Amino acid sequence: MFQQPASICFDLPEWLRKFSEGYQPSLDLRQRMQFVIAASLKNLEMDSGGPFAAAIFERGSGNLVALGVNLVTSQGMSMLHAEIVAMAVAQRKLGSYDLGAESLPELELVSSAEPCSMCLGAIPWSGVRHVAVSARDQDVRDIGFDEGAKPENWIKSLQQRGIEVSADVERESACAVLQRTQAELPFRKY
Amino acid sequence: MFQQPASICFDLPEWLRKFSEGYQPSLDLRQRMQFVIAASLKNLEMDSGGPFAAAIFERGSGNLVALGVNLVTSQGMSMLHAEIVAMAVAQRKLGSYDLGAESLPELELVSSAEPCSMCLGAIPWSGVRHVAVSARDQDVRDIGFDEGAKPENWIKSLQQRGIEVSADVERESACAVLQRTQAELPFRKY
Repeated sequence: MFQQPASICFDLPEWLRKFSEGYQPSLDLRQRMQFVIAASLKNLEMDSGGPFAAAIFERGSGNLVALGVNLVTSQGMSMLHAEIVAMAVAQRKLGSYDLGAESLPELELVSSAEPCSMCLGAIPWSGVRHVAVSARDQDVRDIGFDEGAKPENWIKSLQQRGIEVSADVERESACAVLQRTQAELPFRKY
Repeated sequence: MFQQPASICFDLPEWLRKFSEGYQPSLDLRQRMQFVIAASLKNLEMDSGGPFAAAIFERGSGNLVALGVNLVTSQGMSMLHAEIVAMAVAQRKLGSYDLGAESLPELELVSSAEPCSMCLGAIPWSGVRHVAVSARDQDVRDIGFDEGAKPENWIKSLQQRGIEVSADVERESACAVLQRTQAELPFRKY
């Protein structure tokens, strides 16, 4: 007999709360990105998912709204990439499926890597007005992750929708995490 | 002070459980699609989200594994398209983030409409081996929904990954639901 559940939940790792509380609001995008990259490394170290993190910040104040990490393996759901987790946490926290709503401050998505095809598609629906990324698509593919089929110029595809994009932000730091991941990959499965 | 939640949940509509129980397993794809299209109409009537539904079936037996509907407005999260909901329910039910795992029967995603850019990107990560869609991208755009930037030939982009695609399945029925939606759109917001 088919049984449909009443609800679907996913848990955020216990370490994530304490880690989030250590964030010092910064108006410098590079510092916000360094915080996100540090979360991606912590996610690798704690074995809670792939080496990716993303956060939603208030652009004007630098305040943190939501921190997400890749939870695919630990939570058993393929769509739980860091960007999707960060958007879901932010939307729940702010009570709106539209992070670009007039009543909200300007919000940005800061991710330790360029979005895969799914997350790229999710960005316009989320309402964020600015996206900042660190490691490039090719950096992620180089260590064996699949990024999916994307429009030829993904940055332009977002800009055409009025979403500002900052690329290569602190890229060397994010690549260092990916390289550490590559060294450990034979022992892990994402 | 920043507060990170311990978990994120979304609820499935109460009507969905009873509706799912009314499914009679069928080996005819058109009948499975008609069930999904009926769920998309019910979602419109019950005002639980946009007029879209998707399900995961066992291809060999025709058994229903998971039924999802668009829950963006009712659950306040932009990523809760019908396909994402169906995948999440199936993955939770089967205890695997990979619906293509060797231990599982062959699973298919049956959707009342062609996937948007986000859901298209999510399909390869989900592990489903067959995708069947009804209303075309243009049918959905014609009533005012945004489908996002997709690769030029989305069907080929899936086929190249070994995912079989069946298009235009019972398209007239799905379009009838979209046309009814269009008539009611001035009174609704998705």
